[in-house]
Amino acid sequence: MTYRAPVEDYNFLFEHVVGLQGLRATERFAEATDDVTAAILGEAGKMCEEVLAPLQRVGDLQGSYLENGVVRTPPGYAEGFKAIAEGGWVGIAADPEYGGMGLPMALTTAVGEMMSGSCLSLQVAPMLSQGHIEALEHHASDALKEVFLPKLINGEWIGTMNLTEPQAGSDVGALSTKAEDNGDGTYAITGQKIFITWGDSDFSSNTCHLVLARLPDAPAGVKGISLFIVPKLLPDENGEPGVRNTLGVVSLEHKMGLHGSPTCVMQYDGAKGWLVGEKQGGMAAMFTMMNNARLGVGAQGVGVAEAAYQHAYAYALERKQGKTSAHAESQSIIGHADVRRMLASMKADVFASRAISVCNAVAIDMANATGDKAWKARAALLTPISKSFGTDTGILVADTGLQVHGGMGFIEEAGAAQFCRDVRITSIYEGTNGIQAMDLVARKMMDGGEAAMALLDEMEEEIEKAKEVFPNLASDVWEACESLREATEWMLSQTDMQDRFAGAVPYQRAFARVLGGHMHLKAALADRGGAREKLARFYILRLMPEYAALLVHAQAGAAGLFALTDEELAV
Amino acid sequence: MTYRAPVEDYNFLFEHVVGLQGLRATERFAEATDDVTAAILGEAGKMCEEVLAPLQRVGDLQGSYLENGVVRTPPGYAEGFKAIAEGGWVGIAADPEYGGMGLPMALTTAVGEMMSGSCLSLQVAPMLSQGHIEALEHHASDALKEVFLPKLINGEWIGTMNLTEPQAGSDVGALSTKAEDNGDGTYAITGQKIFITWGDSDFSSNTCHLVLARLPDAPAGVKGISLFIVPKLLPDENGEPGVRNTLGVVSLEHKMGLHGSPTCVMQYDGAKGWLVGEKQGGMAAMFTMMNNARLGVGAQGVGVAEAAYQHAYAYALERKQGKTSAHAESQSIIGHADVRRMLASMKADVFASRAISVCNAVAIDMANATGDKAWKARAALLTPISKSFGTDTGILVADTGLQVHGGMGFIEEAGAAQFCRDVRITSIYEGTNGIQAMDLVARKMMDGGEAAMALLDEMEEEIEKAKEVFPNLASDVWEACESLREATEWMLSQTDMQDRFAGAVPYQRAFARVLGGHMHLKAALADRGGAREKLARFYILRLMPEYAALLVHAQAGAAGLFALTDEELAV
Repeated sequence: MTYRAPVEDYNFLFEHVVGLQGLRATERFAEATDDVTAAILGEAGKMCEEVLAPLQRVGDLQGSYLENGVVRTPPGYAEGFKAIAEGGWVGIAADPEYGGMGLPMALTTAVGEMMSGSCLSLQVAPMLSQGHIEALEHHASDALKEVFLPKLINGEWIGTMNLTEPQAGSDVGALSTKAEDNGDGTYAITGQKIFITWGDSDFSSNTCHLVLARLPDAPAGVKGISLFIVPKLLPDENGEPGVRNTLGVVSLEHKMGLHGSPTCVMQYDGAKGWLVGEKQGGMAAMFTMMNNARLGVGAQGVGVAEAAYQHAYAYALERKQGKTSAHAESQSIIGHADVRRMLASMKADVFASRAISVCNAVAIDMANATGDKAWKARAALLTPISKSFGTDTGILVADTGLQVHGGMGFIEEAGAAQFCRDVRITSIYEGTNGIQAMDLVARKMMDGGEAAMALLDEMEEEIEKAKEVFPNLASDVWEACESLREATEWMLSQTDMQDRFAGAVPYQRAFARVLGGHMHLKAALADRGGAREKLARFYILRLMPEYAALLVHAQAGAAGLFALTDEELAV
Repeated sequence: MTYRAPVEDYNFLFEHVVGLQGLRATERFAEATDDVTAAILGEAGKMCEEVLAPLQRVGDLQGSYLENGVVRTPPGYAEGFKAIAEGGWVGIAADPEYGGMGLPMALTTAVGEMMSGSCLSLQVAPMLSQGHIEALEHHASDALKEVFLPKLINGEWIGTMNLTEPQAGSDVGALSTKAEDNGDGTYAITGQKIFITWGDSDFSSNTCHLVLARLPDAPAGVKGISLFIVPKLLPDENGEPGVRNTLGVVSLEHKMGLHGSPTCVMQYDGAKGWLVGEKQGGMAAMFTMMNNARLGVGAQGVGVAEAAYQHAYAYALERKQGKTSAHAESQSIIGHADVRRMLASMKADVFASRAISVCNAVAIDMANATGDKAWKARAALLTPISKSFGTDTGILVADTGLQVHGGMGFIEEAGAAQFCRDVRITSIYEGTNGIQAMDLVARKMMDGGEAAMALLDEMEEEIEKAKEVFPNLASDVWEACESLREATEWMLSQTDMQDRFAGAVPYQRAFARVLGGHMHLKAALADRGGAREKLARFYILRLMPEYAALLVHAQAGAAGLFALTDEELAV
């Protein structure tokens, strides 16, 4: 199994599709010149190809396991993480004051995607550290920052997020973990957390947990939640790992995939922690970390999709079977129209989801660099779309890749099945794609649709220009935009939120489908007559039309759904 | 984990949707009265619920394994197979002269679906025996029938199909296994076969292999293939298992799912076999067995979809999380609009795919009972549609069921993931769904579209009548039929088969989508104001519209696909 990092695609996207020029014009990211971004991509890509990709299969076969309360990781993972840390890839976007590179999220996203494509189960570790770091940067006191940030950023330590409890998953406000004031500036944390990714490892000298908990007399629900940093080993006066804290891994989950990544049940028994941010300000801090983690998870989907595509392409190019089309160059199965349809669909969706993901990252960067509210709103709007479309694409493309393999796809040795098993969690964690869709049609439309309409206006303006070059293609995308606009207006006009929620997932997918068409059109403009124009034609003419049916579903309302009683839904 | 056999749904389908009345009016199936079919369904359903369903998880965890050349099966599988055999379910459609029940394929399909839903990996064994039996009934000499049929039908012995070789999968004509005449009425078979499901077991007293092989001087390709029956133990003069034949299991595959079902690499070293049918008549015999196996595999998909639906429904009814809709009866997650959307989508698709599957079975039965060519053509047309839609539905519904479970879906203990892993093979084996689609737009349209148009005419006639009761719903389905008709005409007018193949899969799915709308409409007519009408509305208004985009894709042609070169498809 080999993996080639999509460096060229990112260089193209940065230059022609997502407007990194604008970013480079800001003071904050002036140093992210095209030379710098190309160099970063090249270097990270090399590490992914050479160091991480070989860990993909061994991580699946051997998995992480618990031994006397310590997580043992698969062979090579320690070296893999070391390479990530030494490359500076944990702290790529982090504050230079604490050792970070201070680069744009656009690059974090690109590098995150490449690491995900080469070894998803290891990549989860730096991705969570990044969210952890960001939460500290925004909410922690300077004293905490000085102790924790440098070691998290240089990868000596690993950071996790602890939200979920057995009765508090999507409804995080239901959590019951307690925090009590020790009276010395620290707190005692007690409770059980589940689904804690990389809750421990044998290759970092400390693991720091950001834990959501409830102070005594805190109000019920999300308003009563505070955030604490709770390290496995308490830093001594020199900031080095010292006394063992009263927390531990109780067990690991037996999962469908992602075996290399330990998913821990964590027990806190009066463990010592420090408050991050304000009391009862836990959700705000958590959202900082979750929003970017959502973008990161979307990129995970894109990364696995890319890897699964490459894997299927290589198989299709090598495997000979049956008489191929007279149109075909090759006698291998890539010359069969249906296999080629699968490959082209995969490739077109990988590009669309990648472009949306980077577009989202650039909006975050622009918001950070300029403080502009419109960019902030754009970033917020795109987050559920890039998270859900990236992960849905990961799942779909991995599935199609398995199908390209025929019977071999079902055999684990072929490697196609692992992509399917690994990527399956991405549409669930960091907020299921259903939760993303509810976020999109409710919270992200509390501005009366301003952000959505501004994006549609901008898209249509660019599409208008494209009409001169590609009249038919551009018209298709323009019409799709108009349909999306109508559906958006319909959503906004629903006062009963259930009517929005009943069609939220189809709406979210339609939004991505249309946005993907726009991205492909921009790519086609930059590569007239070339491969990107051909791929854009494939996407716009064959895949994008799905939006129409999705928008019908999106606007069908809740009544017909709840007309079916619980009993009637039973067998 | 519990499973409830969908007995009521089948009784409803038989009475109101697929026209079992017509079947009962034939001489051959006159005895399949509604009392008989209800009793059969009830009895088989009970066995599935009580005996097979408990084997689902243990089969996954322990799997089958090879021990000194013998396949060892999971605990309880022997008893499970015994219950299937003693219930007469292997020979449900088989010739009564040899101990079969002689019942319609409609019942075989229903029972097969229920066994698949309760324990897919065990159900594969009787399903393959059924195909094996049917091939012998149609093509074997009376002498062979007398020796083999009674014991295959009563389940003492198990039958397999041996087609695939490493270089001959979808292209079965490329196989190289050799058969040499021993001069005593037997043949010596030599070669290796792969992907042989249930190639051996520890619970049957013999395993009989139907093996495709090539006689000396046979022409190349499919025309040079003959079929042989090659038992593991050679029957002695009393027909009892005697001397060990020179064949064996070399190894088992390590698969993504279906761990309970051993997938064998078989080695034949001059193994003794008997010719079944004519020399070089192997493909015709194999097609007998494959066509019905395709229907059976489609039903497997439906069965897993049903089970995955029930599993997700039970979870959604029990799991409490967050504030639910004011429209909802329950405070559990089934009261969230998006969870309910997922459940309703699953249920609506299960019904559509089940109805199509039984419709196909009834067409086979009518063809067998009347010898009518039109029924034969109908059966042939529906086979790729029911195979692909049933299995695609199995995969999609199992995936949605996992999503309903949230984070728990990714944890193996919850059971949702196993459905996804097990059912994944169904869109591949017995001809990938891509191969089905090529069959649909090529071989099944060699009649100039007569069978397809006859079906569309019949559908539209019935839909016209429904317009009086459900004007809007019926109009939607009628329009869909018209679009499908246009696309069918487009297909027929393409002289370059590659143009058909480029859109064959989307066309096939659109056909099923529209046919599903028709089935739902019929169900609604029989249950006005009831649950079935509500479900039909959900399907027709929210899921069926997908057909339009699929038909656009279906008619896009090969040029745009092959415009992308192999090189351009690379990264």
